[in-house]
Parts: sequence; structure tokens; C-alpha cells
Amino acid sequence: MAAARTLRIGLIPGDGIGREVIPAGRRILEALPASLGLKFSFVDLEAGWQTFQNTGAALPEKTVDTLKAECDGALFGAVSSPTTPTKGYSSPIVALRKRLDLYANVRPVKSVAPTPAFPDPIDLVIVRENTEDLYVKEEKTYDTPNGKVAEAIKRISERASFRIAKMAGEIAVRRQNVRNTTGDAVGKQAMVTITHKSNVLSQTDGLFRQAARAALEAPQFKNAGVKIDEQIVDSMVYKLFREPSTYDVVVAPNLYGDILSDGAAALVGSLGLVPSANVGDGFAIGEPCHGSAPDIQGKGIANPIATLRSVALMLEFLEQEEAAALIYKAVDGNLAEGKLLSPDMGGKATTDQVTEDVIRRL
Amino acid sequence: MAAARTLRIGLIPGDGIGREVIPAGRRILEALPASLGLKFSFVDLEAGWQTFQNTGAALPEKTVDTLKAECDGALFGAVSSPTTPTKGYSSPIVALRKRLDLYANVRPVKSVAPTPAFPDPIDLVIVRENTEDLYVKEEKTYDTPNGKVAEAIKRISERASFRIAKMAGEIAVRRQNVRNTTGDAVGKQAMVTITHKSNVLSQTDGLFRQAARAALEAPQFKNAGVKIDEQIVDSMVYKLFREPSTYDVVVAPNLYGDILSDGAAALVGSLGLVPSANVGDGFAIGEPCHGSAPDIQGKGIANPIATLRSVALMLEFLEQEEAAALIYKAVDGNLAEGKLLSPDMGGKATTDQVTEDVIRRL
Ligand SMILES: CC(C)[C@H](C(=O)O)[C@@H](O)C(=O)O
Ligand SMILES: CC(C)[C@H](C(=O)O)[C@@H](O)C(=O)O
Repeated sequence: MAAARTLRIGLIPGDGIGREVIPAGRRILEALPASLGLKFSFVDLEAGWQTFQNTGAALPEKTVDTLKAECDGALFGAVSSPTTPTKGYSSPIVALRKRLDLYANVRPVKSVAPTPAFPDPIDLVIVRENTEDLYVKEEKTYDTPNGKVAEAIKRISERASFRIAKMAGEIAVRRQNVRNTTGDAVGKQAMVTITHKSNVLSQTDGLFRQAARAALEAPQFKNAGVKIDEQIVDSMVYKLFREPSTYDVVVAPNLYGDILSDGAAALVGSLGLVPSANVGDGFAIGEPCHGSAPDIQGKGIANPIATLRSVALMLEFLEQEEAAALIYKAVDGNLAEGKLLSPDMGGKATTDQVTEDVIRRL
Repeated sequence: MAAARTLRIGLIPGDGIGREVIPAGRRILEALPASLGLKFSFVDLEAGWQTFQNTGAALPEKTVDTLKAECDGALFGAVSSPTTPTKGYSSPIVALRKRLDLYANVRPVKSVAPTPAFPDPIDLVIVRENTEDLYVKEEKTYDTPNGKVAEAIKRISERASFRIAKMAGEIAVRRQNVRNTTGDAVGKQAMVTITHKSNVLSQTDGLFRQAARAALEAPQFKNAGVKIDEQIVDSMVYKLFREPSTYDVVVAPNLYGDILSDGAAALVGSLGLVPSANVGDGFAIGEPCHGSAPDIQGKGIANPIATLRSVALMLEFLEQEEAAALIYKAVDGNLAEGKLLSPDMGGKATTDQVTEDVIRRL
């Protein structure tokens, strides 16, 4: 059993339905059985478009400082973007990933039930590099006789590519262990698929590919039987939709990972199901993959599942696997029964009703 | 009727199954009815990995010169890439697009029949910018105390963004005219969806978005009722898989267009169905979207449909709409009957049998 301790969790609801799902995340943490020997304390923190409009900063220093000084982990909801470029505004979650060196964005995607299009279970995880690539946001614009030209830097480092592939390998091993323990899908090949576009970007994506291979060729992965696979990013999107059940762990540079994880989410029915964790050394922020969804904001019908799973994912990376497993199982129970589902899943349940149903199953 | 003339077509089979499908493209051009008043002459040209191994150049100057000096259009098969980075080798199709300023890559994607996953017809076209973005391939690598770092330039110009969006608008109008003429899907909203990631890349993708909007706000499009829509690229991939039938024309910078078109191809069952044309002012190269497929090379079972449709697409951009329409109809007839299909479509027919069946239907 994990060591008993109190974990301090920063709650950053952000905008829109972020403000409706993050409270659900808090509720499930508070509802975990006492037998786990885990306690939680919470601190409310601000970030987002509303915060920017109120304070002039989308990510106040106080939020960063409090996370660094006091917290073990955090939950981040979603933020709205301005509809036109706004001076001084830039995405707080992108900034947070860099400021806290949360170098991995881990996004597990799992199907609820077989469908005609996908009769075989989908159970894969996208491991997205979270600090560099085009997300360094080094851009410039200049005038030419033919009009404006803008340039952005795509930066790929050997170090970041190596460490993200290493994490992907570790996740593949851990998933294999879970399969062997639970008896679920035993025999599924542990595999890491390296995604890149080195046929065009021979230096940047070539470096990603090479560093990722080097990381995955380490004895710890070879001995565990982790297969190294590769896909060019366009072909990866194609295969993800043609044969998703053949994939296990997919590792990708930041931007491809962003695109692939939305694509994978589409396969399992709703972005409202897909969690993520932004992970660094000893720190994790759980973040549902969906956006702030202004169209349904305030209606109390946002799907809390992505957030509840993000809570579990955060706990996994804080080495509280037992607590994580309880939440996953409760969520799977709610989905398998299929009686209390939110509207994005074809149901009628509210955020609160879904959350309460999951809590009942803990 | 289009003016009677002889069109000279360069044939660049490339590698692998490129050598099997390009002859099918030639056959269908030769089989077009004489009543069209069209003649064709052909010139065989080399490019690709095999050519690189034989001559040291993946795209010999002679190929470029002949296309420029003699040809009205061309057909390009597919090329293999070396499995490890090879000094001096770089993709000949990427080079050709730039050398001939074929600034648009047009990729129509159309479903064959309703499926449980997609009951509504899918009929969309990806219009991909074809000359810039990360495909400028300006890369450098340097050493740091923490290992190698590589950088690539993503370059977006106002001029290229404007002209690709203008072409997307023109295609939307043309498609609407075809719907009104054929009576097919009349009432489908003519729409261009601008894809970008300006929430992160405010300058580069911001410029693409802004220039594309400016192009599409022109009276010629407004008066024709072309709606301007926008999607962030990750959300675009999600929506493409959730509600593909709602899209009409999707315009995107080079790399997103590359990824989106493979994604769209997955929706309709096989890359073997999806054509493309690389289009510049007065010149077009038809190119099937699939690769060189070394796994089935030499077996005579490659699906020629993507190439036959690419022939039609090339003809459209050479203003031979009547000939193009005949080929599209013949292909649709073959697919609708579903008796002579290649193995990627679940059938048993060879490349030749499919080609002959389509020719019979001209
Ligand atoms: C909102 C946006 C900046 C963000 C990203 O691109 O990383 C989002 O798409 C995500 O995937 O978390
Ligand atoms: C082979 C490769 C260079 C090419 C590209 O990225 O453009 C291909 O994927 C395509 O879509 O034509």
C-alpha cells in the first residue's frame, strides 16, 4: 500500500465548463475510502481568459508560486481563448507546462464498448512531449514586397525526445504489468510507436526519432519485451482510424501529440471521456482533454468523466496507484451500466448525477 | 465543349506500386471517347528512390526540364523513402511541387456507400497549401551541453495563404455549381473551413487565418453564398471523425493538410481510393494519395482507383471538365456495383481488371 500522507491539490477551474467539472474532481478525491490512508487538502487557484480580463494576466504569478511552493499536484479545467488575437494573452496551460517542466502529456484513450466500426477494444495512450516543438512559440513577422511573412521555430532536443520516449517505455511496461495482474487483454504486445515526419523534417523529426529509439533500446525495455514501432504522422492518423486496437503506447512530439490525441478521442465517442495528465518529476496536473465548451456552460450537463479519469491519472503519477485503480473501476462501472450518462454520450444525466453515480461505485 | 487539343502528359511512376498504377492512368486517357476531341501524347520521366540509387538524384533535372518545356500536365505515382536518413536524398514530389510552383494540393474524399459509423454521405475536399510551412525544409542542428538540438522553420506567407484560400473558394463555388447541375446533394451549404492553430501560433497560423479570411470575404464568394468556417487543427481532426458529412472544402497550411487528408482517407475505407492534384497556374500533376506500398509491389493487385481519379482531377484543372466527369462517373459505377474490387476494398480483382472495368464504363 502507498505510504499514508496528505496531498495538497491546486484546483484551477479556468473558464466555461472547467468551473463545473473541477468541483467534481474535488468531490471524488474527498470521497475516496479512508482505508487508503490518504488525505487531501485543496487550494483554489486562478488562470484563464476570465482571469486575464480581470487581472491582465492569464496565468497569475501567484498560481505558479503556490503550485511550486505548496502543492503535490493539481487539477486544471479548461480555458477559453479570445476569438481574435489579444495583446498580452497567451494560453496559461501551455505556459504552466513549461514553467513547471511538466514534460509529458499523457492521454489514455479507451473504448467503452465494441461498435460496428470498432469491434475490437481500443486501449491506447498517447504520450505527448509537452515543452518544445512549435510550442516554444518563438515567432516573428516581417514585411516583403509580396506582403507579410511569418516564421515560427520548431525546436526538438535530444534530451526532451529521449526523456519522453523513456516515459513512454515505462508506461508500456506498467500497462503490461497491469494486464498481467488483472488478466485483461493478457498477451497484447507491449509496444511503443514513435510518430514523426522525418521523411520531410530529417533533422528535427529525425532527431526525435533517433533519440526515441535510443531511449527505447535500453535493456529495461528490451527485457520487458517492449516492441519499438514507428509511424510517419500522416500514416499514423490513417492507421489510428483504420486499426486503433493494434496500438498500445504512441509517443509523439508536442504538436503531433496534440492532433493525435484529439483524433484518438473521436474514436471512443466523446472528448468528454478522455483524461490527460501533465507530468514532471514528482508533480502532475490532471486535465480533461475537452475545452471550455461555452455552448453548454452553465447548464450543469458537462461530462465529468474526463475530469474524474484525470484525477486518477494524476494520482497514478503521484504513486497512488491503488486510489487511481478505484476511480478507474468506478468510472468503467458507470459507463458499462450506461444508465447515468451525460448528453454528449446520448444520456440525460447532469454533471452531479454522473459524479454521484461514480462516487457510489468507489 | 472544351477546345479540341493534344495534351502532352509526363508519366512519373516512381517506385513500388507507382509503376503499376501509372500505366492504368495512361490507359484510361487513351480510352477516352474520340467524341471529346481530345488527344494525348506521353513522355516517360524518372524520379524516386530507385532513380536516386541509379543516378544520385531523386529528381533528375531532365524530369523538371521536360515537364516545364513540353508538358501540359503529369501523373506521379509514389516514391519509397530510404529507411535511414541518406545524404543527398530528399523527397522528389516535395521538390517538384516547389520547382513548378504547384501551390495547391487538392484532395477530394468521397464515401462509396453509407456505413454504420457514417450513415450520411461524405463528400469533402482538402485544399492543402503546397509550397511552404515546415516544408521549406530549412533546418539546422547544433550541440549543447545537454545534447543535440535541431530547429526547423515554419514559414507562412500572406501571399501563399491568400491564394490557397482563393482556390478553396473557387473550388467551393465549382462544387456548388456541380451539385446544382447534377441535382446531387442540392442544398448542401457551400463552405470553406479554415484550419489553423492560431491559439498557439498567433503569428504564423494567425497570418494564415487572417489572409484566408481576407481571400474568402471577396464578393465573388460572398455572392455565391460560400460560408466561412474555422477550426483549430486538433478539433478539426476530432470533427472530421465525428461529423465528416458536414464539411465541404477544408483549407489548410501544408503540414496540417498532409495530416488531415490521410485522416479523411481513412473515413472512406482506403487510401487506395483517394486522389490528389498538385495544381499551379496552368499546370497540374495528378498523384494518388497512397504510398509506394512495398508490401504488395509486383503482385498486380494495387488499387488503381486513386490514380484514375487523379487523372480526372488533373483534367479538371486543365479545363477538361467533360472528360473528367466521364472518368468520375465510370469509377463511381465500378464502386457502386462492387463486383470488381481490389483486395484493399475486400475484393479479389487485379489492377488490370479494375482498370478494364472502369474503362468499359466510360
Ligand atoms: C488549448 C491549447 C493551447 C491546447 C494545446 O494545444 O496543447 C489544447 O489543444 C490541448 O491539447 O491541451
Ligand atoms: C511522401 C511525403 C513527402 C508526402 C508529403 O508529406 O507531402 C506525402 O505524405 C503526401 O502527402 O504526398
